[in-house]
Amino acid sequence: MSYYAPSIEKLIESFERLPSIGHKTAVRLAFHMLDLNQQETEEFINSIKEAKEKLKYCSVCFNITDTDPCPICSSPKRDQSTICVVEDVRDIMAMERTHEYKGVYHVLHGTISPMNGIGPDDIKIKELISRLSNDQIKEVIIATNPRVEGEATSIYLSKIIKPLGVKVTRIAHGIPVGGDLEYTDEITLMKAMEGRREL
Amino acid sequence: MSYYAPSIEKLIESFERLPSIGHKTAVRLAFHMLDLNQQETEEFINSIKEAKEKLKYCSVCFNITDTDPCPICSSPKRDQSTICVVEDVRDIMAMERTHEYKGVYHVLHGTISPMNGIGPDDIKIKELISRLSNDQIKEVIIATNPRVEGEATSIYLSKIIKPLGVKVTRIAHGIPVGGDLEYTDEITLMKAMEGRREL
Repeated sequence: MSYYAPSIEKLIESFERLPSIGHKTAVRLAFHMLDLNQQETEEFINSIKEAKEKLKYCSVCFNITDTDPCPICSSPKRDQSTICVVEDVRDIMAMERTHEYKGVYHVLHGTISPMNGIGPDDIKIKELISRLSNDQIKEVIIATNPRVEGEATSIYLSKIIKPLGVKVTRIAHGIPVGGDLEYTDEITLMKAMEGRREL
Repeated sequence: MSYYAPSIEKLIESFERLPSIGHKTAVRLAFHMLDLNQQETEEFINSIKEAKEKLKYCSVCFNITDTDPCPICSSPKRDQSTICVVEDVRDIMAMERTHEYKGVYHVLHGTISPMNGIGPDDIKIKELISRLSNDQIKEVIIATNPRVEGEATSIYLSKIIKPLGVKVTRIAHGIPVGGDLEYTDEITLMKAMEGRREL
């Protein structure tokens, strides 16, 4: 049963449909919207509209971008011979925050996941392979998440890329910096041992 | 420094400006917006626009409503002789959820708070007093929050309403149901003792 006026009820429901927003936060957000003035409301609505209109996927790496190709793909400062393969656009941002990686990217937009009916053709693997037909590419760094699907995708990719004569590497898994051996799960610890390096 | 395309950066900022939304949630919400289809986006935007256009304050009790007077003020089933005074529209909803209160409401839209420069004239006290000039009103229940400002407002209201010959009551403060004496703060416990009733 509803105690609110229908329009605010509808607004609360709109917010509740968003991820990670519970009922109480939705109520708070809805009332906040009512408190905004005309200009603030328009700014909010326009930021949604503009993002929906302007943003598209880069035709090279499938990053989300206002311009095609995206600023990373079209930058002369980036090393076009190294491609870092990630699952999601947000992973590019995480990687860029390190300020270390100077190559380009390829966003798969998912992982191979037979349980969810997602096969190699459902993600941007074909597009990655066609980029490799270019002789310029020297290394593919697979940076999918260290979960079952990410690992499976990584193995699948290495199997089809290696025969093309391109070096394939996987980012290291191990104990996070600042982490604690005592509180590290067995699998991470095992990976950390496997990936040990001579000092 | 920004790693996102300008339009998505702007959308993330829009969400970050909302209360209780941090940067990570804002990023999640922004990407969720991009995943919505045309119709879902329009529904979201329209729910905001509609709420902003249709909602107004009830001219009697200052509840937020699509119709004036609000459904509670215009209901023949409600006891028009009892007014429950609350700080905020959301407090009405909390009260309505009990299904017990059958009177009407008055929303102050704030509390007297000299620290924040809010005096009696800045909240809907004048409007409450003018409702009391009606002989019909028998009781005013003050349900402001049990905080310094709520208490001060409650005392102020009782001082100006009592001379009008209207009964003024305050909701009880004490240990919440399911609460624990051991973990109850001293002031609540003191209020609980003061408010004790004969069995």
